[in-house]
Amino acid sequence: MRPYRWGDPTKTVALPTAAEAALGYLGAHAPEQAPVEPDAATLPDTCLTTLVREALETAVGASNVMSDQLARVAHTRGWSTSDLLKLRSGDASDAPDAVVLPRSHEEVLRVLEICTEHRVAVVPFSGGTSVVGGLAPVHDAFDAVITLDLRRMDAMTSIDTESRTATLQAGVRSTRAEQLLGEQGFTLGHFPQSYEGASIGGYAATRAAGQASAGYGRFDEMVVGLVLATPRGTITLGTAQKSAAGPDLRELVMGSEGTLGVITEVTVRVHPAPEERIYDGWRFDSFEQGAAALRALVKDGPVPTVLRLSDETETAVNLSDPSGSSGSGPGGCLAIAGYEGTPDEVASRRAAASDVLAAAGGEALGTGPGEAWRVGRYLAPYLRDSLLDKSAFVETLETATFWSNLAHLRAAVTTALTATLAEMGTPPVVLCHISHVYEAGASLYFTILCAQDDDPIAHWHTAKLAANAAIRATGATITHHHGVGTDHRDTYAQEIGPLAVEVLRAVKNTLDPAGILNPGVLIG
Amino acid sequence: MRPYRWGDPTKTVALPTAAEAALGYLGAHAPEQAPVEPDAATLPDTCLTTLVREALETAVGASNVMSDQLARVAHTRGWSTSDLLKLRSGDASDAPDAVVLPRSHEEVLRVLEICTEHRVAVVPFSGGTSVVGGLAPVHDAFDAVITLDLRRMDAMTSIDTESRTATLQAGVRSTRAEQLLGEQGFTLGHFPQSYEGASIGGYAATRAAGQASAGYGRFDEMVVGLVLATPRGTITLGTAQKSAAGPDLRELVMGSEGTLGVITEVTVRVHPAPEERIYDGWRFDSFEQGAAALRALVKDGPVPTVLRLSDETETAVNLSDPSGSSGSGPGGCLAIAGYEGTPDEVASRRAAASDVLAAAGGEALGTGPGEAWRVGRYLAPYLRDSLLDKSAFVETLETATFWSNLAHLRAAVTTALTATLAEMGTPPVVLCHISHVYEAGASLYFTILCAQDDDPIAHWHTAKLAANAAIRATGATITHHHGVGTDHRDTYAQEIGPLAVEVLRAVKNTLDPAGILNPGVLIG
Repeated sequence: MRPYRWGDPTKTVALPTAAEAALGYLGAHAPEQAPVEPDAATLPDTCLTTLVREALETAVGASNVMSDQLARVAHTRGWSTSDLLKLRSGDASDAPDAVVLPRSHEEVLRVLEICTEHRVAVVPFSGGTSVVGGLAPVHDAFDAVITLDLRRMDAMTSIDTESRTATLQAGVRSTRAEQLLGEQGFTLGHFPQSYEGASIGGYAATRAAGQASAGYGRFDEMVVGLVLATPRGTITLGTAQKSAAGPDLRELVMGSEGTLGVITEVTVRVHPAPEERIYDGWRFDSFEQGAAALRALVKDGPVPTVLRLSDETETAVNLSDPSGSSGSGPGGCLAIAGYEGTPDEVASRRAAASDVLAAAGGEALGTGPGEAWRVGRYLAPYLRDSLLDKSAFVETLETATFWSNLAHLRAAVTTALTATLAEMGTPPVVLCHISHVYEAGASLYFTILCAQDDDPIAHWHTAKLAANAAIRATGATITHHHGVGTDHRDTYAQEIGPLAVEVLRAVKNTLDPAGILNPGVLIG
Repeated sequence: MRPYRWGDPTKTVALPTAAEAALGYLGAHAPEQAPVEPDAATLPDTCLTTLVREALETAVGASNVMSDQLARVAHTRGWSTSDLLKLRSGDASDAPDAVVLPRSHEEVLRVLEICTEHRVAVVPFSGGTSVVGGLAPVHDAFDAVITLDLRRMDAMTSIDTESRTATLQAGVRSTRAEQLLGEQGFTLGHFPQSYEGASIGGYAATRAAGQASAGYGRFDEMVVGLVLATPRGTITLGTAQKSAAGPDLRELVMGSEGTLGVITEVTVRVHPAPEERIYDGWRFDSFEQGAAALRALVKDGPVPTVLRLSDETETAVNLSDPSGSSGSGPGGCLAIAGYEGTPDEVASRRAAASDVLAAAGGEALGTGPGEAWRVGRYLAPYLRDSLLDKSAFVETLETATFWSNLAHLRAAVTTALTATLAEMGTPPVVLCHISHVYEAGASLYFTILCAQDDDPIAHWHTAKLAANAAIRATGATITHHHGVGTDHRDTYAQEIGPLAVEVLRAVKNTLDPAGILNPGVLIG
């Protein structure tokens, strides 16, 4: 990947017609601007002293401590739109002083020791796809900052086919995990939009959720074991899938976003690779009608493997379907219900779920829209690049709540975003879909598209704060699967309250007394 | 309940014939001994000062601070066999100095403030059914100890039928929860053997698992929200069923066994009350064959609501079937597969699951053994009383592991118990069943029956230590659903390791700086 452009550099994705039209409507007419290339980006001189560099080189090998411009720029911040806009403008001011690539848990421990001793902040990095500022720690109080890139730790260390679990090192990319598991007839079943870039350790650290979570579960539900390297030593968790032996400390490590330690190894549940995959499109007259249908399915079953619902606007614009085949459909709201498994199991589950969807008012659209969704499911980040190229602004945010609060939450966030951006002179299009469903509730995923003004980063910051406040006012969670990072830190503190923040600080002080790990991420 | 005898005092449960026969074989011939009645038990003078008593009376009302003999004896320790043997012998030396009954979260907070100020240890108590020493804290360092009995906090404060969640105060007994939910057409679906005595708060604090966990999940999987009263204030958790907002702190509170705070309110997922319940018996030639059948079902479905498998010995003795109708069956191993739901759903799931069980070598026994199991499912604690009346010794322990380790774990624990008890002159009968199943593993529940020698408590302690060591040596968890208490504390520390213990201590120090909450339980 190029630092400011997602995925396969040979792949360009044209904007769907509806999106092009929306840009005109929104007033995003600015001329295309060529991004500053990485080798021309501006970044500070490295602060790493020779003493520290030599110690790190001794720990991991000289060739695995990199401080050349391209390596540092490639590890600058993450993939939020603001992150990309900064890099596009040539601003790499948050670049780490060096990128360190350990090969083993023991090397990670050694690096953490060195950094503790020398007051060097450490950014754990597996896929680097954070969209919430999770890779931009506040490291002013430290002498330097390094990124600990786990890409060399990319082995499947064991597989237990009887228990259907596999142990993967943290740096295993999703694509490689599926390849390694696929060779043995298994799949992890975790397919987030960041699939082409993200890694196992990051999924655990941030509580990722994939597009097939209705069937395979969230990533945190897949995890049965973890190994955590901390400045104070190692914690190994997971003696059984479920236990009553005290608090479930796996759930304390998951979501800790690199602030408590570096997850070096994860044991996950795996599933037989599905023999068949079918994705159906369904049309509902309204979002409320569609949401009620999804709710009925997830509560009383049978639950499809993939289950999502776009609102009216998203259905019309359909950024995820560049072919426009769904967007040009019959209006209303598009739902996708997908089934993966053996042919018999898929057939019976599909038949029963289809009955429920039809009874709830759904109109079967066949597999056409479902296939369009499948083909386009990882394209949104490419489309964002195309939009940024046209000087449009596009960003996403997500939240979750209980079913009875879902309509209220959607209205509150949409209103907050629309009012704030309109007031600033860039009225947006706000798209929304239900991306993940649970017995008791669901997530809402918003995509915001508007024109860029002179300072789109500050602009968005204002709108995002309004959205955060709306989410909190309704009692919903500030993030369903993107994580907290630095962007959500203050709202997160409101969500859990000051005493719970103190609890997390106490845990951090125990495991990371010098505070070197991702300072300022998650908790202040 | 009488303090040393389980459940409904009007109910007596005769021993099954096979159990009577086993007692003879084991040499448990001692004459029946009448237990010392609670009003004749020996207990220390209360240490509560007038100052503290008056402060507590101001907080909760004078009639809700009890220190009469019967109240104190009734709150002495829990329901392990050693606990019962002590009470039967008249030893109430661990009695609290007073029993305090708050009515609200605010009253709990006030009591914790008073006890912090005056160095009084606090034992949170909801149902009082701990079998692992969870109600017998080490309080030597404190001036007094009170039991905080939550029985007056027994309201369902809200129900959200759209999200299918209900909020229950911690002191709501299971039987009352089912009654309250049943009036609205719902069930919680949590039916542990302690059902007749246990309460919502205790389930959450100890990570209980009920007999229908295959269908409804463990209690910790039912919980979506929690309110925790601590000496430092309140923590309120649960903004969505699932979230990526940091670590899942609900999972830190659950399993904390009253050491971090007092859970005062729990929001749980609920289910439509099933219209139909059918429990089938299945016979397998061997435990291994039966385990493979259960594994196949839980991995690839369809999963029954109840799924359990007794080993050959347990099938023969069948303590849970006093009618003897299963125990007198065709030998081998008895499995129960139960289905709850709508008639259609039950019929289709039962048919498909039966195909899997038959294909795995199971012989269908019809609903007779299933009904016997249903009728007898809460009787084991009554049977224990009957056995203790005959001076036999009976105790249980449980653990869990991954499927690939299950046979090894079962052999190791059985050998450790059998060898240790035989060496001490009381060769046991060791029964085992799979009580809970997961995609990646299962729990094993052991029942140990032997003669009492002169000091059965010390005797059992030795055997239990051997079992604990065997569990740890195989890498399994020290407890699947009974909890840690004081009995498992040392082994638990080995299981999670010293750094994780430090983490828990840091959390406790933050929330309970004076260390008043259940000192010595869970962590040292």
